[in-house]
Amino acid sequence: MIKYSNGQKFNKISSKSTKKPRKLGTFSHGNRGMNLEEDINLSNDFYRSNGLCLITKRPTPINVVKVDYSKGAIITNAYFEKQSTTDYNGVYKGRYIDFEAKSTLKLTSFPLANISSHQIEHLKQVLKHGGIAFFIIEFAKLDQVFLLDASYVIDFYENGNRKSIPYKDVQTHGFEIKKGLTPRLNYLDVIDKIYVNS
Amino acid sequence: MIKYSNGQKFNKISSKSTKKPRKLGTFSHGNRGMNLEEDINLSNDFYRSNGLCLITKRPTPINVVKVDYSKGAIITNAYFEKQSTTDYNGVYKGRYIDFEAKSTLKLTSFPLANISSHQIEHLKQVLKHGGIAFFIIEFAKLDQVFLLDASYVIDFYENGNRKSIPYKDVQTHGFEIKKGLTPRLNYLDVIDKIYVNS
Repeated sequence: MIKYSNGQKFNKISSKSTKKPRKLGTFSHGNRGMNLEEDINLSNDFYRSNGLCLITKRPTPINVVKVDYSKGAIITNAYFEKQSTTDYNGVYKGRYIDFEAKSTLKLTSFPLANISSHQIEHLKQVLKHGGIAFFIIEFAKLDQVFLLDASYVIDFYENGNRKSIPYKDVQTHGFEIKKGLTPRLNYLDVIDKIYVNS
Repeated sequence: MIKYSNGQKFNKISSKSTKKPRKLGTFSHGNRGMNLEEDINLSNDFYRSNGLCLITKRPTPINVVKVDYSKGAIITNAYFEKQSTTDYNGVYKGRYIDFEAKSTLKLTSFPLANISSHQIEHLKQVLKHGGIAFFIIEFAKLDQVFLLDASYVIDFYENGNRKSIPYKDVQTHGFEIKKGLTPRLNYLDVIDKIYVNS
């Protein structure tokens, strides 16, 4: 059983007809024994326990159809819903932080296909109200993770004539996130550089 | 079917062995045709669509045990988990907002029993990082709703020698939230008065 940092647990499913749903759309990290989401959750745990910031993962929205109370409260019929917001938000130095994490197996570009229009709308609202909004984008095969400001992605999403952001552009306009043991992904360091201390 | 403002849907359960779980611990609003959570969600919808702030409800955390992929992705075994954070957070004028909503049927005090130690810990962290943290407390039988700063509740929770906050104290240290049609609960007005414009 995997323990998520926000207290959620997910049993690994082994039967053929059942499997753990993919969390990151374009890419499952299973084989490589690492996972962008897990790295972010562990980094958030590290940040919280060291009093650096408080950023949490929103639980996966689930539409509950049927609950059986005869053996305690067991949900017997439900389904996953698309996240209409982003996966992560929280507070750092009084500022509101909001971001979405995505991973891709592609080498030359980041496809916009798995960003929903609801998420773009949500991030536009965050920016409008003075929050800090960005994407954490992993190029898994390159073993590189970037922080890319939401305004850049929104502009590309709405006005770009491509369905993916070229790697070169992510590299130019984004900031590479340093990897380590604790935290696994030091994205707070990038936030400090580009949003808070600038 | 009830549509929640964050896109979650909950089917009403009518069979005897199954029922919709209570969302607000101490009190079910079913009979009165109103609901604190629904009022807050509708207020948040109003605030968002009018560009005033962006505050969303965190989905209910659910521990998924089994997913059946034979007929699409249907969750066949899962259970509700206790929210380890609070129900609502978001951004207003760049500031981070975080709060929990609770309703009570009691007339003379607000019982602390349905606030978990995890929520207290979470709100302490929010305050530590400069966020705005509070409780929205409804005295349902009095038809009154108050905004009470988290620091007051935390202090009472940790140092008080009572297991409930007297109504008089909520009235004295809290701020009554004006009710209306749109928004149903104008708590942003109180935030303006005590946090943002003071």
